[in-house]
Amino acid sequence: MSTPHGPLHGITVVDLTRVLAGPYCTMMLADLGARVIKIENPGRGDDSRQVGPFVDGESAYFASVNRNKSSIALDLKDPADRAVLDRMLASADVLVENFRAGVMDKLGYTWDQLHARFPRLVYASISGFGQTGPYRNRPAYDMVVQAMGGLMSVTGEPGGNPARVGVSIGDIGAGLYATIGIQAALLRRAATDVGERVDISMLDCQVALLENPIARFSATGSVPKPLGTRHPSITPFDMFATQDGYIVIAVGNDALFARLCEALGHPEWAGDARFASVPARNEHHAALKSCLESRLREASTAEWEAILETAGVPHGPLNGVPQIMDNAHVAARQMLLDVGIGEDKQLRVAGNPIKIGATWHAGEVRRAPRLDQDRDALLDEFGA
Amino acid sequence: MSTPHGPLHGITVVDLTRVLAGPYCTMMLADLGARVIKIENPGRGDDSRQVGPFVDGESAYFASVNRNKSSIALDLKDPADRAVLDRMLASADVLVENFRAGVMDKLGYTWDQLHARFPRLVYASISGFGQTGPYRNRPAYDMVVQAMGGLMSVTGEPGGNPARVGVSIGDIGAGLYATIGIQAALLRRAATDVGERVDISMLDCQVALLENPIARFSATGSVPKPLGTRHPSITPFDMFATQDGYIVIAVGNDALFARLCEALGHPEWAGDARFASVPARNEHHAALKSCLESRLREASTAEWEAILETAGVPHGPLNGVPQIMDNAHVAARQMLLDVGIGEDKQLRVAGNPIKIGATWHAGEVRRAPRLDQDRDALLDEFGA
Repeated sequence: MSTPHGPLHGITVVDLTRVLAGPYCTMMLADLGARVIKIENPGRGDDSRQVGPFVDGESAYFASVNRNKSSIALDLKDPADRAVLDRMLASADVLVENFRAGVMDKLGYTWDQLHARFPRLVYASISGFGQTGPYRNRPAYDMVVQAMGGLMSVTGEPGGNPARVGVSIGDIGAGLYATIGIQAALLRRAATDVGERVDISMLDCQVALLENPIARFSATGSVPKPLGTRHPSITPFDMFATQDGYIVIAVGNDALFARLCEALGHPEWAGDARFASVPARNEHHAALKSCLESRLREASTAEWEAILETAGVPHGPLNGVPQIMDNAHVAARQMLLDVGIGEDKQLRVAGNPIKIGATWHAGEVRRAPRLDQDRDALLDEFGA
Repeated sequence: MSTPHGPLHGITVVDLTRVLAGPYCTMMLADLGARVIKIENPGRGDDSRQVGPFVDGESAYFASVNRNKSSIALDLKDPADRAVLDRMLASADVLVENFRAGVMDKLGYTWDQLHARFPRLVYASISGFGQTGPYRNRPAYDMVVQAMGGLMSVTGEPGGNPARVGVSIGDIGAGLYATIGIQAALLRRAATDVGERVDISMLDCQVALLENPIARFSATGSVPKPLGTRHPSITPFDMFATQDGYIVIAVGNDALFARLCEALGHPEWAGDARFASVPARNEHHAALKSCLESRLREASTAEWEAILETAGVPHGPLNGVPQIMDNAHVAARQMLLDVGIGEDKQLRVAGNPIKIGATWHAGEVRRAPRLDQDRDALLDEFGA
């Protein structure tokens, strides 16, 4: 039985992106069924091919986010190679790049020129600070925008150092908003038959993610700070140590709290005046945490999960990556895929969380391309 | 001059969502020009209307993510109100809900029934764990999926407690992937004229964000841990204390390192054998950090910004929310909007980072609706 086509089947994306923000965007488009032609520098290709860890000399970083794409090496300063790119653009729906702002213009690919020649083409740029504004020519890295965008200022232990989010949310966030922008432009084109310019700034995307701290600051003037793992106004709504790890417990009202105390074998806590209401529990959060942890440390996270599940108390284990790789629900949702890497090896990577109709079953996933591997076929199609 | 229509102009979204994951998704659709009709419970409406802080009794939390929407209160168990909803669905393009899985089915709105009656309708559900799999009926909160999805296990100080990402990335991540899924389904519909079912799980989205730790673990078997703010394999690529705050410095090669040492007035550091190469600097990262901070603490973040900008060393300040609210670049990118709240007050909120063509200037932003404020107009349009 053949896999049904993904929802973006028929869309062709010319992909000039490197490293993460851009490739994450075009991975989403490819996972959804678009044809993605990755254009790489002759010689070394995408910089992330050099980023470890490696399997048989191939980058796992690269393999994860470049699945389902094809590759051709083109020198964007060479007239013959530019002619190949131009022929691709003539039949493509989308061009995506994540050079520093201004690089494409210097190469002679300005929006005005592209739009005049290819009026239906959607042209999306992802850059550190966007195509406009005083910082537009500054370089950026994930960590720079996480710091500048405020997310680090609200992440970490109370009173401790700010912490970086443990994944490159500066890049991935930009990749997600860029995907939304590209699809919005394609939907508009369905009505107008005209392509649009999409301008995504990594810093803008960090500001967008900071939606709630910004609204709170605007309303109160009080500066949002790191809160560790505790909820600011509901208790117990926190992470607690168990015998072998941690568990999150999320109890928003008194009835649930009584049920929690019962499940822990300490119904008397529900009658304790310090813990009698949400505001009381919030005031005495440290005392309550100490009570709860004294009991929770007596059994494993898995044992508490079973007990709280039966009791109907919202909870979840703190999973590390190994637990996610071995979880029946994650497997049932097909959130882990095997992609080829190296000499006939398989790398297990995160799947596509966008499950649409009959197309959501992963089907065959094509391995990330070797540099220039599709040259002959692509030149047959787009060569002179 | 009138504001050009957004790219999703002409798309109508019937919005049954509450709190954050769903409303963030429909905010994106509304910001992009879709018409969003928010259906709320009679009486209290969206639960997040009760979440503080408040301005003149109106929730800032609600005001931020429900801008540009209209509101009508409908009782989904009342036949007359269900008839109104059905008439809306007959002309709508998208239905979005974020009830616990199974709630819509019990209300008689299964995918099969909806698809039979409204074959062009795209129906998107956002839930804690998705519509399938062993956990499908479990409740979830942002913090529960941040813990279960592994993101907390890689965020925080090395050797310290895991930290929650300081924004509700469990909800917002799901809202972003849902927006991508809805638009993908609309693009497919443009080809097939048939609506699709979109099934988004908050946990799946956390796994998707964990793309790089999963690939690293698959390649090496080594469990990814919190790294604080330091890069695992490039030094100096970290956050450093200054006289009045912090600065991020991102130096990936020896030439840039020499330029950094020069800018700090310590060219001799570049000649120090401990700091002679990336691997050497990585091995002696603690000694290097102590050198750098001894100097960086002598001036303010703003002074170092000016010096490093001139020297061409990639850097950025660690901004808190107040600095973001007062930044010329953020303002130039129109990443802060004023929306009405309370009695003629304005709340400054995060803007839309998706800048498309001539429509990216924010134009007029409509304030979040009062509960049921559009009843008369909507009943005129969709009433019996």
